[in-house]
Amino acid sequence: MSRFAEPMARLIEELRKLPGIGAKSAQRMAFHILRSSNEDAEALAAAVRDVKAGLRLCSVCSNITDIDPCHYCASPTRNHRLVCVVEEPTNIATIEKTRSYSGVYHVLHGTLSPLHGVGPEHLRIAGLEGRVQRGDIDEVILATSPTVEGEATAHYLAQRLRHNGVRISRIATGVPAGSDIEYADEVTMARALEGRREL
Amino acid sequence: MSRFAEPMARLIEELRKLPGIGAKSAQRMAFHILRSSNEDAEALAAAVRDVKAGLRLCSVCSNITDIDPCHYCASPTRNHRLVCVVEEPTNIATIEKTRSYSGVYHVLHGTLSPLHGVGPEHLRIAGLEGRVQRGDIDEVILATSPTVEGEATAHYLAQRLRHNGVRISRIATGVPAGSDIEYADEVTMARALEGRREL
Repeated sequence: MSRFAEPMARLIEELRKLPGIGAKSAQRMAFHILRSSNEDAEALAAAVRDVKAGLRLCSVCSNITDIDPCHYCASPTRNHRLVCVVEEPTNIATIEKTRSYSGVYHVLHGTLSPLHGVGPEHLRIAGLEGRVQRGDIDEVILATSPTVEGEATAHYLAQRLRHNGVRISRIATGVPAGSDIEYADEVTMARALEGRREL
Repeated sequence: MSRFAEPMARLIEELRKLPGIGAKSAQRMAFHILRSSNEDAEALAAAVRDVKAGLRLCSVCSNITDIDPCHYCASPTRNHRLVCVVEEPTNIATIEKTRSYSGVYHVLHGTLSPLHGVGPEHLRIAGLEGRVQRGDIDEVILATSPTVEGEATAHYLAQRLRHNGVRISRIATGVPAGSDIEYADEVTMARALEGRREL
């Protein structure tokens, strides 16, 4: 029933699977590709293929990387005894942007979510546990989000990793920088009071 | 040039001075008042007058109150040796909503803002300082907003009040409860890492 020739219809269909891309956008992108040079189309196709072929998970921290160990795990200038645990590889960018963290990372690739059938066995925890048990780490910073799943995951990890002589800490929940406490919800405000620090 | 009779035009003009009220809304409100009963109009006029005549600042904490000392300062069930310092009286509501704070308050009625000519002499600090110097207080929680002015005010107060044997603390800045760290700006994320707590 498609109004388009089969290869065109197939490209539109594939583009529509991308997040945030509807039928109209997919169509516009497909026509752009059709009108672009052979080299450009080939470069896009190759980039799509290579992202799958060329990337893998770092054998140390499970970050997405093209070299193993990854950029952070191989860096001689970072503190390898300080590990920040995040939910997803994209969270590393958020923390790097602060320019105030010089330790390394560990990526879980998800959070515990019993309702969705995600248990500890579905997360990348074993590698982190091994590093902790070998005494390679001084402090583990649990930087999962302060959401229900993120908190549950942080508490699970704290229980599982403690008794290894490692310091385990949790990032602060509180009023965001630059915002008025007038707009803080009660849970955030309660946590900001509870987490107050001596000056 | 007004299309309205003088008393009506004057009411519209006065209502327009309220925040968030434009010409259209003021006109609608004025006509509503005109059509309402004499009792209703009188009740509104009296309420406006009484809010100025009946309210004053608490002589202990500078909160807005109809009795002196205020509800919080007079309460026998609250901890009067724990004082939470806020910018405005409305901030007390934000903290009370947490249901996790049982101390008392001190209201500054503003923040330091040298650019707008607001110095320490324009804030209500003396009363707080007196309570601290008399040894009436164990801990002062600085709960000004984590904005530029709020931070400057907190640091100024910490300097001014220290050396009185009082503990001085600052509410936590961090990722708000329930939100994904993906959306945390770099300053908030840096503060969340810096303010991490051992588990």
